[in-house]
Amino acid sequence: MSADVPDVRQTRLDNYVDRYAARTKGMTASEIRALFSVASRPEVVSLAGGMPNIAGLPLDVVGSAVRDLVIDHGAVAMQYGSGQGDPGLRDQICDVMRLEGIEAHPDDICVTVGSQQAVDLVTRVFCDPGDVVIVEAPSYVGALGVFRAYQCEVVHVEMDDNGVVPEALEQAIATVRAAGKKIKFFYTIPNFHNPAGVSLSDERRKRVLEICQSANLLILEDNPYGLLGFDGEPQRALRAEDREGVIYLGSFSKTFAPGFRVGWVVAPHAVREKLVLAQESATLCPPVFSQLAISSYLTRHDWLGQVKQFREMYRERRDAMLAALTEKMPAATTWTKPGGGFYVWLTLPEGLDAKAMLPRAVTARVAYVPGTAFFADGFGSQCMRLSYCHPTPERITEGVSRLAAVINEELELRHTFGPLRPGASHGYEAPGPELS
Amino acid sequence: MSADVPDVRQTRLDNYVDRYAARTKGMTASEIRALFSVASRPEVVSLAGGMPNIAGLPLDVVGSAVRDLVIDHGAVAMQYGSGQGDPGLRDQICDVMRLEGIEAHPDDICVTVGSQQAVDLVTRVFCDPGDVVIVEAPSYVGALGVFRAYQCEVVHVEMDDNGVVPEALEQAIATVRAAGKKIKFFYTIPNFHNPAGVSLSDERRKRVLEICQSANLLILEDNPYGLLGFDGEPQRALRAEDREGVIYLGSFSKTFAPGFRVGWVVAPHAVREKLVLAQESATLCPPVFSQLAISSYLTRHDWLGQVKQFREMYRERRDAMLAALTEKMPAATTWTKPGGGFYVWLTLPEGLDAKAMLPRAVTARVAYVPGTAFFADGFGSQCMRLSYCHPTPERITEGVSRLAAVINEELELRHTFGPLRPGASHGYEAPGPELS
Repeated sequence: MSADVPDVRQTRLDNYVDRYAARTKGMTASEIRALFSVASRPEVVSLAGGMPNIAGLPLDVVGSAVRDLVIDHGAVAMQYGSGQGDPGLRDQICDVMRLEGIEAHPDDICVTVGSQQAVDLVTRVFCDPGDVVIVEAPSYVGALGVFRAYQCEVVHVEMDDNGVVPEALEQAIATVRAAGKKIKFFYTIPNFHNPAGVSLSDERRKRVLEICQSANLLILEDNPYGLLGFDGEPQRALRAEDREGVIYLGSFSKTFAPGFRVGWVVAPHAVREKLVLAQESATLCPPVFSQLAISSYLTRHDWLGQVKQFREMYRERRDAMLAALTEKMPAATTWTKPGGGFYVWLTLPEGLDAKAMLPRAVTARVAYVPGTAFFADGFGSQCMRLSYCHPTPERITEGVSRLAAVINEELELRHTFGPLRPGASHGYEAPGPELS
Repeated sequence: MSADVPDVRQTRLDNYVDRYAARTKGMTASEIRALFSVASRPEVVSLAGGMPNIAGLPLDVVGSAVRDLVIDHGAVAMQYGSGQGDPGLRDQICDVMRLEGIEAHPDDICVTVGSQQAVDLVTRVFCDPGDVVIVEAPSYVGALGVFRAYQCEVVHVEMDDNGVVPEALEQAIATVRAAGKKIKFFYTIPNFHNPAGVSLSDERRKRVLEICQSANLLILEDNPYGLLGFDGEPQRALRAEDREGVIYLGSFSKTFAPGFRVGWVVAPHAVREKLVLAQESATLCPPVFSQLAISSYLTRHDWLGQVKQFREMYRERRDAMLAALTEKMPAATTWTKPGGGFYVWLTLPEGLDAKAMLPRAVTARVAYVPGTAFFADGFGSQCMRLSYCHPTPERITEGVSRLAAVINEELELRHTFGPLRPGASHGYEAPGPELS
């Protein structure tokens, strides 16, 4: 039997199992997925999903914009376009980023199919199997999935309420390099972190930049929530301070709508050229109609006024969640206090396991994402991510109340039977759009 | 100096050159790109581009469809969606494929960002570096780019006017396996081949299926042009005869419009599951708005009637090209006679080099794609791809006339100075959307 003829047994479900690429070993469906399909039933309060609440969008404006786009510019809007993205939209993206102190040229930008694809393309361009990517602990589940699909080694670095801990970052770089491994970049979400709900302080921004510059280490700055802060002006991006050492990822998914799948990368010139080639290989070009629809929306509408409305809506929900947590949660439960974005990171009392508890929570009609999803290494079992972006304040209050009752029950069980031994965790699990 | 600190010299243009992944060695910009930007000037007749001619689309129907989609279903159409693709659209895709004899279930389908992304995801799931992919000679430039980006070894198999030569396929499989290498799939475009302009005959379809079944080799059937045949009914797809051994790729780019970037894969269940995980890692989900827009168009419009109009329009252009070639080309020039699709494959008289000739052709205000772009191994220098999809019949006639004059001049030069020695070819070059 020759090399690529698999030994197919009748009892085997997957006839192709011997033929897949090695990278597919990192692609496994989440075991909690089935639970999420239950959690989407209306009687369950889902604090799990990361879907933005787009009910406030001006449908009449968007509807006219897409209609006119077809009628007036259909031959262009429905045709293939530039692999780098529409030049007009790239110009507008520069205006959007200026709000965070970024001075960029449209040539520096590569449009992507949501910023998820930006993470994919950057990793494709930089990472060989076995290369190290440094990420925060916890980190975005969708980015962990990409790093795993490209067979990277993920090294987590401690965070606290002010974002990543600079000394821990410095230490991690030194340790990985001392082991003779290549670090390709430090992936960070400085603003309103998903899932941690914290932001990198001003002081630490400087330190993180210094550390990475002196270590000659690229920063991959993922910033989907930067304009969704509840207090004061948007933070200056890391990219605003360093054009050569920072690759910046942006997205219209949270400031406008995710269904068009438009994000972008800003990268130094040579890297940007590679990204465009990678984009052409991946899709030929990002969706032209989506790009021009967003371009038209930005032109026709007070889009920043709309973002301000989103902020107020999310602020109200954040307030409802924090108030309910304070009122309902048992002692020894702690959580972060986000200044923007969508997420609170909650740590259970010692000895409780968020994943083991999830089926009971869903039975009690509340859902969340267990913390292990946000670690590549099985940590996080005592933690969970709670989203306040989608439900109404009343539903959030009700959901937190149900969750507190479940935690109290767990505490009683533990009191009666002793601490649970958490099962072995698989760490990262494929996210699915609902966990984005 | 530690492992990942590059030696950055001031004279080096790309500061990141030591940090890229090995796969980027296969990602290089085409040297003929600069010429194509000249070729896009209106005085040049471009027989190079593969952009469909969508001028005939009913803009009023599409305009109303997208407007109503926003007004009536905006909260869903602009939100994240399923990683596998919209269930309603997948159901409609089954109807589309039934025209080619395919019986599929919506669960078998994974929607992609154009069928380019389908090639990318299938390769991602199956191919490790060094794995062999068998392709036709010539083959689609965009697929060659994907195989190269995944560091596959590409083995070409001879074609003639009836498509791939079965004996050559059988021989290639045996030779590669005898060398101890793994073949992951046979990539084929059975209908109105890009760039060869030929179709696989009925008899050979059976033989190719038998050969691949007995060799236990997957077929990757890429079929963007299957409904654009000029004579009789659509051919039965290879997938129609074999559900387990064929992965089928389809696209709305040529039957509707490419700017929405919607294609699809039909794969056996286990493979489809991997593809969905790969899609979620790549983009979270394909563009929801695009999918629902196409779904609405298919419902509201006589889309198959529109495809028939496209066919007639392309037939008229094919006829114009073949007539002009017959009338103008010097002896010893040969070309294929496509029964559908967009392309004619032309072979120059012995000793002429299509790539070397291109700058002179562009100066004479006609452009084409040199044949080397469609080979991974530097072959094809005597050939070129001519597209008749976009220009008017009059422009096609004029373009062929200019091209014939350039070829005649080359023949005179050769007569005077002896045969040209073709320069070393780089083989595959990144396509760019304009070459798709």
